[in-house]
Order: sequence, then structure tokens, then C-alpha cells
Amino acid sequence: MKFQKMLKLKKIFDISKKYEIPEESLRPYGDYIAKVDYRLLYESMKDFGKLIFVTGITPTPYGEGKTTTVIGLVDALNRLGYKSLASIRQPSLGPIFGIKGGAAGGGYAQVVPMDDINLLFTGDFPAIEYANNLLASLIDNHIFHGNELGIDSRKIKFRRAIDMNDRSLRSIVVGLGGSANGFPREAGFDITAASEVMAIFGLSLNINDLKKKLGEILVGFSYDKKPIYARDLKAEGAMAAILRRAINPNLVQTLENNLAFVHGGPFANIAHGTSSILSIKLALKFSDYAVVEGGFATDLGGEKFLDIIARLGDLKVCAVVIVATTRALKYHGGLKVNYVEDSNKNLVRGLQNLEKHIENMQAFGLKVVVALNKFSEDTKEEIKIVRDFVESMGVGFALSDVWAQGGKGGEELAKKIVEIEEERTPRFIYKLEQSPKEKIERIAKIIYGASLVEYSQEAEADLKDVSLVGMDNSFVCMAKTPLSLSADPKLIGRPEDFKIMVREVRISHGANFIVPVLGKIMTMPGLPKIPQAVKFDIFENGEMQGIY
Amino acid sequence: MKFQKMLKLKKIFDISKKYEIPEESLRPYGDYIAKVDYRLLYESMKDFGKLIFVTGITPTPYGEGKTTTVIGLVDALNRLGYKSLASIRQPSLGPIFGIKGGAAGGGYAQVVPMDDINLLFTGDFPAIEYANNLLASLIDNHIFHGNELGIDSRKIKFRRAIDMNDRSLRSIVVGLGGSANGFPREAGFDITAASEVMAIFGLSLNINDLKKKLGEILVGFSYDKKPIYARDLKAEGAMAAILRRAINPNLVQTLENNLAFVHGGPFANIAHGTSSILSIKLALKFSDYAVVEGGFATDLGGEKFLDIIARLGDLKVCAVVIVATTRALKYHGGLKVNYVEDSNKNLVRGLQNLEKHIENMQAFGLKVVVALNKFSEDTKEEIKIVRDFVESMGVGFALSDVWAQGGKGGEELAKKIVEIEEERTPRFIYKLEQSPKEKIERIAKIIYGASLVEYSQEAEADLKDVSLVGMDNSFVCMAKTPLSLSADPKLIGRPEDFKIMVREVRISHGANFIVPVLGKIMTMPGLPKIPQAVKFDIFENGEMQGIY
Repeated sequence: MKFQKMLKLKKIFDISKKYEIPEESLRPYGDYIAKVDYRLLYESMKDFGKLIFVTGITPTPYGEGKTTTVIGLVDALNRLGYKSLASIRQPSLGPIFGIKGGAAGGGYAQVVPMDDINLLFTGDFPAIEYANNLLASLIDNHIFHGNELGIDSRKIKFRRAIDMNDRSLRSIVVGLGGSANGFPREAGFDITAASEVMAIFGLSLNINDLKKKLGEILVGFSYDKKPIYARDLKAEGAMAAILRRAINPNLVQTLENNLAFVHGGPFANIAHGTSSILSIKLALKFSDYAVVEGGFATDLGGEKFLDIIARLGDLKVCAVVIVATTRALKYHGGLKVNYVEDSNKNLVRGLQNLEKHIENMQAFGLKVVVALNKFSEDTKEEIKIVRDFVESMGVGFALSDVWAQGGKGGEELAKKIVEIEEERTPRFIYKLEQSPKEKIERIAKIIYGASLVEYSQEAEADLKDVSLVGMDNSFVCMAKTPLSLSADPKLIGRPEDFKIMVREVRISHGANFIVPVLGKIMTMPGLPKIPQAVKFDIFENGEMQGIY
Repeated sequence: MKFQKMLKLKKIFDISKKYEIPEESLRPYGDYIAKVDYRLLYESMKDFGKLIFVTGITPTPYGEGKTTTVIGLVDALNRLGYKSLASIRQPSLGPIFGIKGGAAGGGYAQVVPMDDINLLFTGDFPAIEYANNLLASLIDNHIFHGNELGIDSRKIKFRRAIDMNDRSLRSIVVGLGGSANGFPREAGFDITAASEVMAIFGLSLNINDLKKKLGEILVGFSYDKKPIYARDLKAEGAMAAILRRAINPNLVQTLENNLAFVHGGPFANIAHGTSSILSIKLALKFSDYAVVEGGFATDLGGEKFLDIIARLGDLKVCAVVIVATTRALKYHGGLKVNYVEDSNKNLVRGLQNLEKHIENMQAFGLKVVVALNKFSEDTKEEIKIVRDFVESMGVGFALSDVWAQGGKGGEELAKKIVEIEEERTPRFIYKLEQSPKEKIERIAKIIYGASLVEYSQEAEADLKDVSLVGMDNSFVCMAKTPLSLSADPKLIGRPEDFKIMVREVRISHGANFIVPVLGKIMTMPGLPKIPQAVKFDIFENGEMQGIY
């Protein structure tokens, strides 16, 4: 909070002028937030800016400062005279009231107004939830009123959604209490960020595309094993109507008064993990450099952004930034007790994790720059160890000190980026025409480093459903732990000779991807014993505490 | 929709100038919606305007045009040279996607932009839901992590909320699926408009008051029968933080470019049924006449507004407008097949319903004007029958043709209002110091016309809890059907010699009222066989259909 107070916010309409975003396409939400009419994207095609994609090494549970790096890099590029714009995801209330307490960058590299961005913002998440939950209600209502479509209530795949950490809602029975309340059946809630409607929201190119994708959501199966889609319930018109404001990307500013899009929020472990494709494209349209963040490391947000979003959106990439910290490197070298303890041995051993992530991004044929997100405890020797290793791989390295210095601390990184002139279409890891198993195997072996992929009986059955609904040629959106390159969170560093077990394969028919689930994945988190929520407060003068 | 297109919206900042609302206290949501900082209310005390309260006779399920009358009256008063401002509730998504398709007035007496007002608006309802559901999650999380407070999961009173008609969520079991998901228990969702957080939201005078009331919510009881409040879970700070934007009333405009507050949305059958007290007070502050609507008829929104809101907010009332239609009067006279059929016999017989509603408002010592909301089918003879009857009671009568004519059609009503100069503090039906049973009996006998009040065993047990939590001196917020003056929807007209059965008494400890439940009351509606939702659509040019 103190960082925000030290700097003066500018009215969003004033900043947007610098980027030549026409004012009549902006809808204000107070003085410092605006939604941009997405149709602007299709109005006139001019030269688009270059795309910088920011990913990271395998993180500790504390996160390694990717968002902070994105924002600092945008500020640095603007300092160097380039128009630059960030595109990041909107934080979920789940982690805000759970452990994290907020997510909008850190130190002098933040987007503001932070309280609004973290709490409800422009109402996009509630809109996504209402769209989701309207469909859920229409399903049970259809069954209640005679079930003309013959929906088998045991085979309903679609779940309700709420942007809240609430483990009690994971597995529930609905429709109890007598015949007036419908038919009892097993059901559950996912956190909104893990829902298919969120994924669709992030992938849609316009209202018609959104409506079409929503209509294609696989609701479940009928008693005679026919797939039932949202469009069979005529749900997609109302769902899209609910989302009609939300689809327009949100603009805010950095502490150095540069623009950032904050739009969409799919998790990267279970969903695709980047901001909306519309916000990315608008960022490219109005900047020289659009800096886009993917969730977690190269094996999750990285792979998914390049294989799914870049392919779907026909995006070229100028450079990939991999964010590392000495804390995480030491952790991957085996240091467990005290992350910040001086331990060069562990640091050196941990570099193999970074090495794999560099190789992963190079596998897509892309130029990589490693950004070491500086902690005040980092020693010169530690920094040199990382720099020497990265440069020995022939890869660019930059120390990033944006937390403490803002854009100034990102200039080394920005300069490394600007040196890269060429933009490349990623060399995708799999072809859409490959079979689901081939696609899964390529990701597991090339990106994770697995030696073998196995399938549970349930997954084999799911793959038959995938064929049944005609999705053999769809995208693959893997779901696994972010805490390891493998599917086992205990395997730190660069695991080798491990096998992957695909437990199930979920179908996101509207989003057009299948979700192979590796290991235990929570689509509805729980709160810790002392949730961050109990530390929140608000006062008569408008001051708030709890978000940091 | 066509009415909106025929008239030109003005920017909300331009209209607010006319009312001398300082621009720096407005937060825009697009060009035509703004939130007003509630603290403006406490900044300087000037002469407040006069309060006109609009209620109605017992409605048919179609509604008799109260909101339409409110808006037309505001436009009419402005035409006559008085600054007038409406204060109405925000519509719930439940009825919008269920049967009604929207609620923002009708014909030439509407508030706009209607699509926004009806769909998500400025995000107040989601905020109320998140505040509600955060508390729910904290309750189950507390039990999961050791249950230090000893909460008896069988005695949790607090329910989750969602702004959706979804009967399947009325009665559910949560926490299934193994020990990682908590402890199974019976639970359920209410529609947001029926939640205690909505009631508290509507009753709070500032942030501190809001926080205090939220902390006072009765969550349930411990194993040793001690009450557990939200503050015991330290929930109120985060809940109030979520509501920090929502608490500021929303301003929109009528089709004749006059201002209207649309804020808060408690149902009147189960909750108190008027817009927020802050929006009512702000409307009074910035107008000569603030026109406020209560839900349903005098026996529900009417009684509750006068006994609860006017008492709590220390409000004087200039006049009460009772809206009637020949359709509803004929219905109460026994006409069932065709409401608009010419049937003077039924009309005359139905006048007894109107008579009782007039008497009800006179029981509070207030001046009454009856507004007959004109339908195009109404004959001169019918209108004369109603007028003669009303005037024979010594009460003012006005034909209101605002649906077809806008403010011009409300001038007769406005003139009748302006003639009333005196403002009166209502003569409350009960004293807070009376016992709960005395209070309930006074409302049932004086307002409903009941001869006897009985209590179920459950209600008797509930009343012991009321004493246990120290609420013998609290307000009473009755819950009953809106379709009859009695608790039996089949008893039309002016029922007499009937008894009332109090089935249960719910405790809204944070809102400081008890809710005696008479007959079957749904706190979570269901969707009809063909819900309005399936008629919604949205197009690339922003045009929407489904709301009318």
C-alpha cells in the first residue's frame, strides 16, 4: 500500500491518449479504470506491436514475481521510449481471502488501483459465474419439468462455479427436500477461475464467437448416451448477454502511469492460464511491445500459451522471458529449511530446473531471456553464478530489480528484449491432427521430461467420450501440479525417468480442448486455518486493509 | 425497448448538475450510471425534501405498475417545477431469467439504461453474495480446522446466497466426498434478495454501521447452545470490504432525464422490501420530493417501510400513494377467467381490497392518494366507479396514465401530492418494547385483518431463541404471501375472520429484526418450464433481446 501512496495516479483517459486509444471506445469505472470496446480491434488494421511472453521456472508456493517482472518490464520499455502495455490476469477472490492477500505485482512494480483490481473490479468474474450458474440451473430445471432431452442426471459433467475458496462445495448433493425441489443428484462447485466458462471467456474473439462457444459446452449425456450441449437448452443467448460488458478488456495503470490490461483469470494448473485473447490482441494493437504473462512455469502456462493461445490467435512471439529467483533455485537444489540462506551448492544444483525451462521454450523455436528477480538478500556471487550459467547456454540474462526500483530496475531486461528484432511463430509441440494420446505424450516427454505415459481405466473411458463428441483433433490443456516439472509435487529440480499417470480426461467442448488430469488437482481450493479474510478491514474514510 | 430508442439519454453528470449533486462525489460506470459517495449525506445538513411513499393494493401475479407509477410521478413533479428524485430497488436476476424479463418501470415511465440496470448493473448484488458466501465458507472452514468455537453443524442458521432462480439449491448436503472436503451437513442457498446480508446492506447508515451489523449476524449455535455470531469468526471486516463500493447508491435517469436512485433489492415478502436507506436519504437531500417504492402492497412493503425503515431512519412522510388497477380490483371481486373483461360487478366487489389498504395506511396516521394506473382497456365508467368510491372515503384520487404519456400522464397525481403540505411521523403499529407475540398480533390484526394468531411448536421454540439472543425488543419483518391480505393466497378481496399460523420465526440478528414466517414462503424460487432466459440473445452490435 505504501508504494501506491507515494505515486500519483493519473486519470485513465489521460494515459490512454498517449497510446492513441480513442476515448469514445472507453467506458469508465471511476477515474482510474476503463473497459475498452473490443470491437476496436477489428476497426482498422495497423502495424501491431511485438509480443513478449513472460513465464518462469518451477515456483515455490510463494511465487517468484512474474507479475512484478511483467509490470516492471512495461515501465522499463516505456522509459526507453517504447510504447509498452501489459496484459495480465485478474486475481481471484479465492487466494485473496485465502493466503495470498492480493495479486497485482509488488513493490514499485504494481498495477493500480490495487484494492479495486483485487476486489470485484469491473464485475467480470461475477458475470462469468452467473453465466455458468444460469446454465446449471437450466439443466436441473429441464429435468424437473419433464426431462424431454432425457438427460441422465448421473452423467452431468457441468458444475456450478463460485469465486471463493470453499471446500465444502466440492462435492454436494442438490435437489433434496422433496419433489418441489427437483431430483436429488451429485453435483459440485468449482472456483470460477477453473470453470469452462472462464476458459471460453478468455478464448473468444467476439460476441458471436463467445455465444457459439458457450452453446458448445458439453453438459452431459442422455440416457441413450447422446451428448447434451448448452445449446440444446437454449442457454447461450442469455449466457452471452450476461457477459456483454465483461467481454470488453479492462484498462488500469502501473505505478509509473503506463497502461496495463487486466482481463480474464483462468488458472494455469487446470485451465489455460493467460489473460484474455482480446486483451492480448488489443495490447498488441496499441503498443510497440505487449508484455503478456502466463501462469506458473513453462510446463503449464508456457506450453499452453504457445500451443493453444498463440496458435488460436495466430500470434508471433518476439521473446520469452523466464523469471527465476535464487530462492526457488536453491529450493530446487534441495534447500528446504531456509530459502534465503546462503547456499551456493544448492543454488548451483537448482540451476538444472532453470536449464529445463530454457530448453522448453527453445523447443518452440523461440528466443529466451532469463530475468533474475532480485531479492535484497541476493549476493553478488549468487547473481554471478546464475548469470554465468545462463550465458554459458547462449541465452540472454538480465538482473531485474523492479520491486525496489520500478521501471529503472527493469532497464537491463528491457534492453536485452529490444535487441531481439525477429518475431517468430512458435514451433508447436503437437499437431492438432495427432491423436489425443500422441499429443499428451509429446507434451509429457518433450516438456515435462517424462519417460512414459500411462492411463487409468477412467481416462481410457473418457478418451472414448472425446471421440464420441468429435474432439480427437482438439487442443490439449494439461492439468497438473505447478510445483514440479512432473506430476508429483515432491520431485524438485529437473526430474528424470519418471512416468505420468493420466487419471481422467475432462472435456471442455466449448473451449475446444480436452483436459488430461495428472495426479490430484483441486478445482475448488480450501481456506487455511487462519485465512487472510480475517485480517481485512475497512474504515469510514475509505481506507482498507488486508490486501498487500 | 422501443420507448428507450425514442428518447435521448443525457450524460448522468449533466443531469446531476440540475440537482446540485457535486460531481466529485460521483463515480461513473459508463456515461449513464454513477455511484454517489454516501458520505455526502453527512457533509452538510440542508432542508430535506418531502417523502412520498408508493405502495399498492394486493397485486395479481403480473404486478400493478408501482414502479411505473413512481417513475411517472417523478417526471410529473419535475414537469410542475419541483426537483424530484425516485428511489427504487434493483431488480433481481431470478425473475429476469424466470418470468418477468426485467423490472425498471414500463412504457414511457422507465429508468434507463434498462439493460444495465437489469443485468449486473454496478455489481452490488454480486458483492452482497460474495460477502454472504465468504461468511458461509468461513463457518465450514472453522469446523474443518478443529471447530474451536464448538459450532453445532446441525444448528447453523446461515445459508449461502445466489442471485438466481435455482430450486435445486434450496436443500443440499455439503462437505461430501471424504475428509479433505470437510464435514457433511445439511445446507442451502437463498436467492440474494432474500438474504440477511441484503437486508443489512439496505439498512446500514455508513461503513461502520454496516460492519457492525454484519458482525452481529447470527450464524448458529454451539453444542452448548451459545449463539455464534459472524464477529466470532472475524468475518465482518472482509465482508464490509467487499461491499465498500456497493454501499454507495446508484444513480440513473428516467426517460424524461430526471434522476432516480436504484439501490438495494430486498424482496418484500421475506425481507423488508425497499431500496436502501442511504439512497432514500440521499434522494431526500437532493430533491423537493423523493418518491420511494415499497414492495407489494400495504400489508408487506407498506407496513415494513413505515414500521421499520421510517422508524430506523427517522423519516417523516408527506403522502402515501396506493396504486390500483381495474385488473386487480376485478380479480379481487372474483373475476378469474379474463382480467380485462368488462365486469363492473366484480370491480365494485373488489373495491373492498382497496378500502382495506387505504385504512391500513390511515392507521399510520398518514395522508393517502389513490392512483389508478390506467390500462388502455379501462372504460370511463370503470374509472368513475373507482374515483367515486375513493372520494367517498374522503381520500384523494388521481388517474395515472404515465405508461402511455410519461410525466404528462402523472400530472393529476402530482398535483394531488403537492396539495398536501404537512409531513408526519408515522404512528407505528407496534412499539419495540412490546413482546414479539404482541407485535406480531398487532400487525396481523390491524393490518391483515386477522382475528387470531397461532404458533406452531417450532415457532414457540424459535421465540425462545429470540429471547436467548436478546431480541425481544427488535423489529418484526413478517414473511407471507403477497397475493392476499391473509397468509393464504387463495383468499382474495378483503378476507375477514381468518386466523394466522406462525410456522417459524427466523432471526436476522444483524439486521435487528425477527422474521415470523406465515405459510409456505420460498426463499429460493424455481424457473418455469420455459424460462425467459431462453428468449435472451445478444448481437455483435451490442443489441440485446430478452429484457422488456
